Amino acid sequence: MSGFVVFALVLSLSATGSCLGSAPPQPCLAPLQWEGRTVQYDHGTGRNTRASVTYDAQNQRIRVLEQKTGHTPCKKFFEYIYLFKSGVLFQIEEITKQCAKIALTEAWDPYDIPLNSTYEDQYFIGGPGDMIEVQEWSDRKPARKNEAWVGVYTLKDCYPVQETYTKNSSVTTSTRFFDLQLGISDPGVFNPPSTCQSALSEKMTSDC
Amino acid sequence: MSGFVVFALVLSLSATGSCLGSAPPQPCLAPLQWEGRTVQYDHGTGRNTRASVTYDAQNQRIRVLEQKTGHTPCKKFFEYIYLFKSGVLFQIEEITKQCAKIALTEAWDPYDIPLNSTYEDQYFIGGPGDMIEVQEWSDRKPARKNEAWVGVYTLKDCYPVQETYTKNSSVTTSTRFFDLQLGISDPGVFNPPSTCQSALSEKMTSDC
Repeated sequence: MSGFVVFALVLSLSATGSCLGSAPPQPCLAPLQWEGRTVQYDHGTGRNTRASVTYDAQNQRIRVLEQKTGHTPCKKFFEYIYLFKSGVLFQIEEITKQCAKIALTEAWDPYDIPLNSTYEDQYFIGGPGDMIEVQEWSDRKPARKNEAWVGVYTLKDCYPVQETYTKNSSVTTSTRFFDLQLGISDPGVFNPPSTCQSALSEKMTSDC
Repeated sequence: MSGFVVFALVLSLSATGSCLGSAPPQPCLAPLQWEGRTVQYDHGTGRNTRASVTYDAQNQRIRVLEQKTGHTPCKKFFEYIYLFKSGVLFQIEEITKQCAKIALTEAWDPYDIPLNSTYEDQYFIGGPGDMIEVQEWSDRKPARKNEAWVGVYTLKDCYPVQETYTKNSSVTTSTRFFDLQLGISDPGVFNPPSTCQSALSEKMTSDC
């Protein structure tokens, strides 16, 4: 119990630290492996995409399983296996298991707070007696660059809560994270199915 | 302690209720008076606007005090007093106290979940051992209308966490809520300052 009090005191000192002229808050270290769910909102299309996600920063890979919603009765749903170390993305249609193998052009970009990030804010989400404390960070450079990324992470254990990206003025996505669990219960989800041995080379579209 | 167990059981039954064919979840009743902070993200401009908010649904009024950030050194900041019952908005410049009195054209739209809303999802935000449970609702009508509003509210006590509005394809705003406290500590914030007795009739702009 006394350990708790000391911990709370350290936290409260670090939170008010910038007012006292001491060192500003440092980015926390986000967990390297977790499972959870996400909703990604694309502000261009107005679409919400829900998915189950297995995240493995240790091996630079992510598996995304799209979840059906009531919105789009005739849409196709896909599983995505991103293997950044091999530079390969597998896209698997959920019903037919038809598979496409695509070269990954983007670099690995983990769900974490880069060391050179700008501290924006710290606050509680929720209501009295039922809340979590989070910090908000961005890639803003004061008087030089507006933010193109904003990340909200829990103060305790540094789990992602929300990330917003602005690629250009018209492409913005917000990803919210939830039902997060530490670790990976089934590493087998990163193995593509046998249909990927004779895979298409072009991405499949999700429309009917 | 036994009270807790019963409460958890009721919650878990209501969460799985829709799978068992019983009544779907009903919208909770959001608190009528609170104080807190918000960040409103405008996806058109890419700007985040931070504010202190006093919310009074009982009397259909909201007071918004914009907060300075490091982004915009020469921007003006305003206080807004929305009085929906009188159909009036006061806009007060924070330094000069210059005041504009403007007719309110929008209808009162409380921060709550309308009774005819569509239940979308329920989940935990945060990490293991440090999380809040929330429900997500929208104004989507299955097979008839995409959502133009999505609201995320805490399951316990029904505090707002996030609201996203799409007015048309190009105007989308997301408002996140935090540091919420029940009740209004100073109802005086809804009284406009004396400079509003001889007020401008046009809205002031925030640029330099």
